[in-house]
Amino acid sequence: MSYYLGVDIGGTKTAIGIVTASYSLLDKVLVPTPKSPSVKEIGDLIAVTAQALLAKHKLSFSDIISGGAGCPGTVDMKTGHIIFACNLDMHNAPLAEYLSKKMEIPFFICNDADAAAFGEYIVGAGSDVSSAITVTLGTGVGTGIIMNDKIIPSEGGHIVTKHGGIQCNCGRKGCFEKYASATALIEQAIEAMENNKNSLLWELSGGTENVNGKILFEAIDLGDKTAQEVLDKYVEYVAGGLTSIINLLLPEMICIGGGVSAQGERLIAPIRKLVHAEQFTLADGSYTQIVACTLGNDAGIIGAATFSKYI
Amino acid sequence: MSYYLGVDIGGTKTAIGIVTASYSLLDKVLVPTPKSPSVKEIGDLIAVTAQALLAKHKLSFSDIISGGAGCPGTVDMKTGHIIFACNLDMHNAPLAEYLSKKMEIPFFICNDADAAAFGEYIVGAGSDVSSAITVTLGTGVGTGIIMNDKIIPSEGGHIVTKHGGIQCNCGRKGCFEKYASATALIEQAIEAMENNKNSLLWELSGGTENVNGKILFEAIDLGDKTAQEVLDKYVEYVAGGLTSIINLLLPEMICIGGGVSAQGERLIAPIRKLVHAEQFTLADGSYTQIVACTLGNDAGIIGAATFSKYI
Repeated sequence: MSYYLGVDIGGTKTAIGIVTASYSLLDKVLVPTPKSPSVKEIGDLIAVTAQALLAKHKLSFSDIISGGAGCPGTVDMKTGHIIFACNLDMHNAPLAEYLSKKMEIPFFICNDADAAAFGEYIVGAGSDVSSAITVTLGTGVGTGIIMNDKIIPSEGGHIVTKHGGIQCNCGRKGCFEKYASATALIEQAIEAMENNKNSLLWELSGGTENVNGKILFEAIDLGDKTAQEVLDKYVEYVAGGLTSIINLLLPEMICIGGGVSAQGERLIAPIRKLVHAEQFTLADGSYTQIVACTLGNDAGIIGAATFSKYI
Repeated sequence: MSYYLGVDIGGTKTAIGIVTASYSLLDKVLVPTPKSPSVKEIGDLIAVTAQALLAKHKLSFSDIISGGAGCPGTVDMKTGHIIFACNLDMHNAPLAEYLSKKMEIPFFICNDADAAAFGEYIVGAGSDVSSAITVTLGTGVGTGIIMNDKIIPSEGGHIVTKHGGIQCNCGRKGCFEKYASATALIEQAIEAMENNKNSLLWELSGGTENVNGKILFEAIDLGDKTAQEVLDKYVEYVAGGLTSIINLLLPEMICIGGGVSAQGERLIAPIRKLVHAEQFTLADGSYTQIVACTLGNDAGIIGAATFSKYI
């Protein structure tokens, strides 16, 4: 029997997992990501941890078909170099080559959002379609685009959805992620709370410092008008950007990920309604499926483990 | 020696051409497109015209490797059906199947903008890259996306670049094509002329009815401030939409087509400057090439003739 090795390198933690030939996660382990690591430092940590995890299952590197790692930042999938990962402080780092030699298996790297998208595409929400885009609503907005079994590198958080809007770190004004990220949702909630200090949202949060997505949905459940208005406006922003992405690429499916996607249909249904009312192909009666991601944090490990088959 | 057959079906004229094995156009002929044709009517016209053109070169259908047609509207490349082409008034029309039987060659259809993009990608401006997007600034804005040798169907004129902006026929407000099409450029020129009746642009055009792109650039050459301001604003609109498309797909190249692209670097240089100042990957020092299309009207014939190899 043969396995894949999947690694999801995060800014604070790195997950290493064994993935079966049928793309399910056998086991995983989390280790702290070293600060500003050298290729040797992070490479050795991954290799040693993987070896221990394999040994636990009476396996060794000779049982591994190939391995892959998803890294935050810009990577060159062909050379296996991390070009620039600001959260890791790594530049032009030949990580795939190092791990390939160290573990004596074929090893590949890709962007972490792409890896997660690929996991969803292979065994998650997108497993029955031939084109799917995963849009992660997190600190920023990340996109992972899969078309015809291939990852297309993307930075979809930086399409401008509001001409001349909020200044983005990327230099542009009005980027999608300034309106549709989880961070933006909280900022929108804080602004609404400051204008509605009698709202239940204010009461439940005990002021603007502690508001989060969970409290927002709790306030909505209790009938708070302020909280509902925040969500309605946020849904409009998300749907607007998604409709543009959909019109540009006509994908079969959009998978929405990130912590806020745990709200499921309460978030997805109103987004779907707005997108389907506006998407270009509605004239043909064809609609892009809009669903929540299903693999959660394991998507990155599974995607990284298997994407090399589809580069 | 073997050849391909390429057909570019337009709303008023249909071009039929013979393309060599090295993708150059041997010869072409134009015929009027029948109004609201049946599959038999337009199919027979294409077959008869192609036969005559081949005969002129002492060729027959047995010399043809395969054929393809670019059609305006939505097509299903896999089944070869025109799903909906409003300018031809054709619905669910099995044109590829009809032509394949009639001419006894493998025959395929695709969207006309995709065919033109593919022509540019194979032998035109994009022949040295592995990902290119052709953006045609015409009556509307058309996009043809090629990634990893595959056409990705798209309707890039309908990304919203100005939230809540001008009403588009598609139902959305603020679509890219309402600001960046050749039609929009003329509308923007007319608006500026009405506010500046002493401008050279007004004088050269003799009022708002006759203004066109050529006169606009003529007025700029003669130092007209009004004309220059129209172009500057238009360039800003085009660059804004292109930057969003570039950030979403990180292509190696954007090829700009449509009549206005004949202005070459006078139009392309200022667009390139704005895009390169804003595109996400500038942090890595990598920039998308922005060039004018080079094949003109033949791109559609060449692309249609050869795209089937890459479906």
